[in-house]
Parts: sequence; structure tokens; C-alpha cells
Amino acid sequence: MLIVLSGPSGVGKGTVRQAMLADDFRDFQYSVSMTTRKPRPGEQDGVDYYFRTKEQFEAEIAAGQMLEYAKYVDNYYGTPLKYVNKTLDSGRDVLLEIEVNGAMQVREKCPDGVFIFLTPPDLMELKHRLIGRGTDSEDVINKRVKQAAQEIKMMENYDYAVVNDEVPKACKRIERIIESEHLRVPRVIDKYRNMVN
Amino acid sequence: MLIVLSGPSGVGKGTVRQAMLADDFRDFQYSVSMTTRKPRPGEQDGVDYYFRTKEQFEAEIAAGQMLEYAKYVDNYYGTPLKYVNKTLDSGRDVLLEIEVNGAMQVREKCPDGVFIFLTPPDLMELKHRLIGRGTDSEDVINKRVKQAAQEIKMMENYDYAVVNDEVPKACKRIERIIESEHLRVPRVIDKYRNMVN
Repeated sequence: MLIVLSGPSGVGKGTVRQAMLADDFRDFQYSVSMTTRKPRPGEQDGVDYYFRTKEQFEAEIAAGQMLEYAKYVDNYYGTPLKYVNKTLDSGRDVLLEIEVNGAMQVREKCPDGVFIFLTPPDLMELKHRLIGRGTDSEDVINKRVKQAAQEIKMMENYDYAVVNDEVPKACKRIERIIESEHLRVPRVIDKYRNMVN
Repeated sequence: MLIVLSGPSGVGKGTVRQAMLADDFRDFQYSVSMTTRKPRPGEQDGVDYYFRTKEQFEAEIAAGQMLEYAKYVDNYYGTPLKYVNKTLDSGRDVLLEIEVNGAMQVREKCPDGVFIFLTPPDLMELKHRLIGRGTDSEDVINKRVKQAAQEIKMMENYDYAVVNDEVPKACKRIERIIESEHLRVPRVIDKYRNMVN
């Protein structure tokens, strides 16, 4: 099963994803993204990202090998199809943590994925978090909040909305969604059809 | 939210429903059925069933006041609409535990309900359970098993399939389904729309 975790900038997608992966009881594979940006100190190829040149990345796009991708500030970021398919074929769940535009690209290609939208408890808290980072100017913050309002409107394209009030709570909600989705009839009907034939 | 628990005869719907209601942490209202059969010793009107005469029951049907109903062995059984709507209006979840034919009637009237199909781990176990009751002849058992096979085919009309291998496990699965369904975007989108406006 493909699980897509997305949501507005600053909502804490990365933190929730890391917390979920830190728990050994959750059996799924995180899909490492591909990027053309330079590795930061300590970042490893194949662990934090697959680091590629612009030419290599564009070759992957041209070959239809990217499940989704986008360009931010002159760098490409995206999800290589190959690793996702390999994991799904092995019967394990795959977790993607991506931006909303990327999630919509995945939705088109994989409509039977589970699309989870991580939301701030309210817009004011999103504002506080961005200020808390201390790295952005007021203009940047206002722009991000406005953008978040637009992105929240995108929520209607998702299956679930999970509030990120506290990271462990958000993880628990996502865990339950995953467990419940595994019980959905379209995902299991064939197993049951075999039972009575 | 309307939760419909259904499944083949003998699968243990009643036991699972009772176990769920016995847990005080689960905040939902069980919808008491209406019937024309005579009360058994100890059964209370309004608790085990609403006991009504055939004429009273048929008047409810004629008035469109039954969410679903069926006739078994000359007696009517059904779900009165009034109590379900009253509970839903108060913001609480309603749990119905009904036969598969009744569930399909509810599906038509309440497509946004959550429809859960309780299944035996396999057909042989269903057979054992029926034999375990010790009240049915072999013919009756074979007929019921055949009927169950047909009913399992009805599973495709449900949202979720929950295996009743052990009652506490089945309850936990249903509990998670209920929690996850409360996070589904169509159920919460209005709350979020208000957040950004």
C-alpha cells in the first residue's frame, strides 16, 4: 500500500515522518527522494536523498522514471518510481513525505494510495511555528501563511486530515489510518473470494 | 456518524457488539431494534428490543419510519429511524448491528455511513461455530454455510472487512476504523474551511 503524507509548509511533515520511522513496530519503507541540490554536511547519498546532477535528474524525468517531482529555487526534488515499485512488489507499505503539488501528481498515477493531509491545529499556530524557526522575515512568513491557506484548500483532494497538534498523537492517528485502510474491502476482497470458492 | 456492523449468520455480530458496548471508552449509542417477536424471559422493552405488535410494526413501515427491516419466520425485525436520527443529531455515533439484507437497505438511505462486514476466519470455522451451538441439524448447518458463502459475496458492498478471530481483536479493529473514519476529509473539510476563512 502506498501512503502519501503531505501538507502545508511548516506543518511538521518531516518531524512526523521521522517519528514514524523511528518506531520499529511500524512496518513500512520510507521512500528516499531524489534531488539536484548539494548535500549538506552529514547528509548521505541514498539515505537522506539520492543526490544527482541536473542532467541526471532530467534524464529520469524524460524516461518517465519519476513518480512526482518539482523544482524549488533552481533545484529538482522528486520521488523515483523504481524504489517505490520494488517495495510495493515485495508486499510492504511505502511512505512518501512530499509537498502538496507532488502529492497531486501521485494521486493521478496511484489513485488507490492513501493520501493523508497533515494540518496545523489552526493557522495562527502555523504562523507561530514559522516565527519560531527564526530564519524567515515577516514578509516571508506572511507569504507562507497565505500559501498555507491555499494549500489547506487542497485538502479536499486527500483521503484523511490529521492534525499535527503533538507529534506522537499525529503518528498514532496515521498508524490507525494505515491499519484501517488495510481492512478496506477493495484491498482484501480477493482473499475472501478465495475463501468461499 | 452511522456505523453499520453486519455479516453472515453465526459470525458473532452480537458478541462483538456487546463487547464494544461494554467498554465505556467507546462513545457511541447502540440502536435498539424493533421486533414483533415475543420477549424472552428477562428481555426488556427498549433495552433488548422495542417489542411491538405486527400491526404497530406495519404502521411504522407504512409511515416510512423504518431505516431497514426484514421478516424472519413470521416476525418482523428492524431499525426505527427516529432513534437513529435523534442520536446522530446530538453529534454521537450510532452503531447498528444488523443482517446483511438490512445493511443494504441502510446503505441506500445513508451512503455516508461506515459499513463493516464481520467475517469468520474461514468457512470451516463458521461451520464449527454453528455445530458448537448444538441447536441445529446437519441440514440446517449446511444450508447456513451455503448462505454464508453467498453473504460473503455481499462483502463487496461494504467499506471494511473485519475478521472475527478473537472478539477483543475484532473490537480493536472496529474501534480503529471508527477513529480513522472520523479523520476522513469529507467528514471534516467544513471545519478546516472555516479555519482559513
